[in-house]
Amino acid sequence: MENFIEQLSKEQLVEVERQMAMYSLGVQEIIPTEELKNKIAKSVLLNNPLKIKLGLDPSAPDVHLGHTVVLNKLRQFQENGHIIQLVIGDFTGKIGDPTGKSAARKQLTDEEVKFNAKTYFEQFGKVLEMEKVELHYNSKWLSNLSFEEVINLAGKITVARLLERDDFEERIALGKPISLHEFFYPLMQGYDSVVLENDIELGGTDQHFNILMGRHFQEKFGNEKQVALLMPLLEGLDGVEKMSKSKKNYIGIDEAPEEMFGKAMSIPDELMKKYFELATDLPPEEIKIIIKELFSGELHPRDAKMLLGTTIVRMFHGEEAAEKAKQQFIAVFQQGSIPDDIPIVEWQGEKQVPIVELLTILGLQSSKSEARRMIQNGGIKINEEKVLDIQLVVSMTDNLIVQVGKRKFVKIRLN
Amino acid sequence: MENFIEQLSKEQLVEVERQMAMYSLGVQEIIPTEELKNKIAKSVLLNNPLKIKLGLDPSAPDVHLGHTVVLNKLRQFQENGHIIQLVIGDFTGKIGDPTGKSAARKQLTDEEVKFNAKTYFEQFGKVLEMEKVELHYNSKWLSNLSFEEVINLAGKITVARLLERDDFEERIALGKPISLHEFFYPLMQGYDSVVLENDIELGGTDQHFNILMGRHFQEKFGNEKQVALLMPLLEGLDGVEKMSKSKKNYIGIDEAPEEMFGKAMSIPDELMKKYFELATDLPPEEIKIIIKELFSGELHPRDAKMLLGTTIVRMFHGEEAAEKAKQQFIAVFQQGSIPDDIPIVEWQGEKQVPIVELLTILGLQSSKSEARRMIQNGGIKINEEKVLDIQLVVSMTDNLIVQVGKRKFVKIRLN
Repeated sequence: MENFIEQLSKEQLVEVERQMAMYSLGVQEIIPTEELKNKIAKSVLLNNPLKIKLGLDPSAPDVHLGHTVVLNKLRQFQENGHIIQLVIGDFTGKIGDPTGKSAARKQLTDEEVKFNAKTYFEQFGKVLEMEKVELHYNSKWLSNLSFEEVINLAGKITVARLLERDDFEERIALGKPISLHEFFYPLMQGYDSVVLENDIELGGTDQHFNILMGRHFQEKFGNEKQVALLMPLLEGLDGVEKMSKSKKNYIGIDEAPEEMFGKAMSIPDELMKKYFELATDLPPEEIKIIIKELFSGELHPRDAKMLLGTTIVRMFHGEEAAEKAKQQFIAVFQQGSIPDDIPIVEWQGEKQVPIVELLTILGLQSSKSEARRMIQNGGIKINEEKVLDIQLVVSMTDNLIVQVGKRKFVKIRLN
Repeated sequence: MENFIEQLSKEQLVEVERQMAMYSLGVQEIIPTEELKNKIAKSVLLNNPLKIKLGLDPSAPDVHLGHTVVLNKLRQFQENGHIIQLVIGDFTGKIGDPTGKSAARKQLTDEEVKFNAKTYFEQFGKVLEMEKVELHYNSKWLSNLSFEEVINLAGKITVARLLERDDFEERIALGKPISLHEFFYPLMQGYDSVVLENDIELGGTDQHFNILMGRHFQEKFGNEKQVALLMPLLEGLDGVEKMSKSKKNYIGIDEAPEEMFGKAMSIPDELMKKYFELATDLPPEEIKIIIKELFSGELHPRDAKMLLGTTIVRMFHGEEAAEKAKQQFIAVFQQGSIPDDIPIVEWQGEKQVPIVELLTILGLQSSKSEARRMIQNGGIKINEEKVLDIQLVVSMTDNLIVQVGKRKFVKIRLN
């Protein structure tokens, strides 16, 4: 590729540097940085927008905060006039898993794909200006590939290169089978880039291999190579695993304000910095101050987390809803009934327990007759609901909260 | 598969055993033997012919004796009423090598494929009854496979299984690249069997892996599995390498009778047994006697080879031509000018040597003047051609024969 940087005027160079600084923020890896800069230079010089690709799984249209890490980055490109290309990987969705083994790869109908895409679109609209976004379905080109064209595509990559992918390498090492068709998923993603002629492909670091396939195939087909822009993965509420729907550790961007706020409050303190940086739209300078004050002790972790929760709710539901969610949280969880340091009981007993028995076993009441009286007086709550039936059989679940009067609580933990 | 053997009458069992004995003759490997027997039993019981598949490379239509090993086996099946399915692998031929690296995989036009198939047909007619043979072009089904169907096919095989193929294993070990498209050649051959629903596939032992692919995919597609019938590879005239056109160590079945006979006479003695067994149509009992007498010394190796040569020529040109070729060979090489135990001279000198000098250096004439006289009297021959020019400069080549009078010979060997 021609060197466009050396052709820039001083003002143009300033603009290129400004964009580079913006896109680099929070990024895990740019492959390679110089090419990104040169592409931006070309775009500034020729006044041509860049094409930025993001591939989407058509089977899981529930967008959560983990997705917004990439969406926020896309928004930056969009703000500078570049073109966002969303690619729905519907070809894979439509063919399903040929071995029938993977429940995750269930076969989707045309209607399901269209419905899921629509769902994406509605949700993405909270971050991106959707009327400026290009939407592509990769079945449009992939389903028409002939066997000959597939062979031709396969002829442009070696088996050794494909086996370098982490999960393949691992499975080979463990002697676990890899079906040959699995080699085609990275090929398809790469070929999408050949067709779309995009300049940049965005994704999480787990897309490292697949996005480099785009570079590989664009080059093999004689195109300009895309730059890979890899974003860190956001851990979920558990603070350990990548946020995902299947792990149930996610904050969906369509969730109700109170739910969203409550979930944000539940993340481990150590993750706050990452959430502020990757999952909010606060200006970088403001984030820096928050983190500094948090570390120096000027800002209490609870207050910082409140700010995080408010910001996240505000992004998807607006200022008013955010404030309301915050107030409600304070009402219920701080001033309200359940403090957040209540004793936890590891429950090893039966799964179905009569309420009277439960109260005595947990030591919340000294006798069954006392327990019965307390129920009749309306002094017992299970999960904040008053128990009125002394015959009630309680189904023991994880995080069940048993409350006696105003101040006595026990939280159940199941193993 | 149902057990058909136990359903046979006594006479039917005799017939099955007869066919089994015939098909097993000279075979390297049957995978598995019991299935072959059961398939024959089914065919005898239901009076249904079996389908026997042979795949053909569309790029090399010159049939040589090496091919006839398999053709002779096919003829046995045909004689028992089974159906021969010849599959021209024209799909691969038409797409060529997508990497452009392999000269062997040059792209063929429709016309070339048709022409080559016709050539096969004409030549195979010398061994098989062609009007009873089914001819298939695999492009008919392969070129119409969609990407989805290719993925489905690829989903039925693991990468590890493909990497077991000897040449892949070797290249992985040597760090030599394997292009992904190469994985598809065995898949195609396997899929051909799915489409053709053949009972047996024949091939040389070098087709072991590919033919087992047919079994694999037929099973994966829910069909009855084909039996692999692998024939030994016939070494060429050099006695070392597999007979092949590129190695120039072959006897083409379209060659002239004399050429054929001469080439047959040139094979190493140790190979005679294999040639008799694999490349002639002599009855097994007769071959056994020949080999026994050859080993005991009752039959002179030269006579055995004459018999081999006559038989081979007779198979492709008829009795009369065979006898004529034999007589001509005897006239030229035995009674004729050049005995086969003439002295050999390792030539280290110039490559261009005046004839007069050559005769003295070789010690065939005691002086140059004597040599000149001998030439003028017509007593000198080079490679059986009379030398008339005393100024002749001889180009020294390997196997050049210099003859003086009727009985003095020297054969030149170059290093």
